[in-house]
Amino acid sequence: MNKHESKKSLGPRYAYDGLDRVIHERARLSLLTSLATHARGLSFGELKQLCALTDGNLNRHLQVLEEAKLVSITKSTDQSRPQTSSRITALGRKRYFEYLAVLEQVLTDAGAAAEAELDHQGPTRSLTA
Amino acid sequence: MNKHESKKSLGPRYAYDGLDRVIHERARLSLLTSLATHARGLSFGELKQLCALTDGNLNRHLQVLEEAKLVSITKSTDQSRPQTSSRITALGRKRYFEYLAVLEQVLTDAGAAAEAELDHQGPTRSLTA
Repeated sequence: MNKHESKKSLGPRYAYDGLDRVIHERARLSLLTSLATHARGLSFGELKQLCALTDGNLNRHLQVLEEAKLVSITKSTDQSRPQTSSRITALGRKRYFEYLAVLEQVLTDAGAAAEAELDHQGPTRSLTA
Repeated sequence: MNKHESKKSLGPRYAYDGLDRVIHERARLSLLTSLATHARGLSFGELKQLCALTDGNLNRHLQVLEEAKLVSITKSTDQSRPQTSSRITALGRKRYFEYLAVLEQVLTDAGAAAEAELDHQGPTRSLTA
């Protein structure tokens, strides 16, 4: 293999700049997926269950998402009990779907690795490890 | 809608426990994808280019992956220049593919959100927002 040629063609092939840190964090990805699939919004209790988060973590991550304008939070009172309802915003939905496109790219790239592994294990081929 | 029924059926539907924090971090996901697709290993310089990382970040994240036994690092001397070569381990490959299965689940769940959105925008249906 020509070393120079190989180096020139590299580029940031697997950098995944589009994996936005605000969305990529696991708890927030979990929250945004819950809210994207429930466009009418979810209560604090429902999000807690769906995402298996503690009150503290849920509050903290919802706040990050609200500050980034990806989620809107409304506080109201239902039968004298305070109710918090969160909804994904139009911007949140846009950014979430852009993020998902990058996840798809990761899976496509990884598919090449899976195929290489199958080739490697195949009975008719004998590659040096 | 019956509130109790709805609450009982929730569960941690979108918790994604399988999104292993060691792998999920963007730079490390980038490194593991590079190494999974290059089973013979990659040099420090190649990884730097493929993942668009600084020397410091590359060193730091490679160390985390090595400590977790997902990557093995060999140091050698090539024409009197030090060479670092990294390879994904068998454990690393196993954990990486397990992680990818969870990513696929996120995309499947998100697909439901995309369909709901299409329904919502459809000309023949008029749902209240």
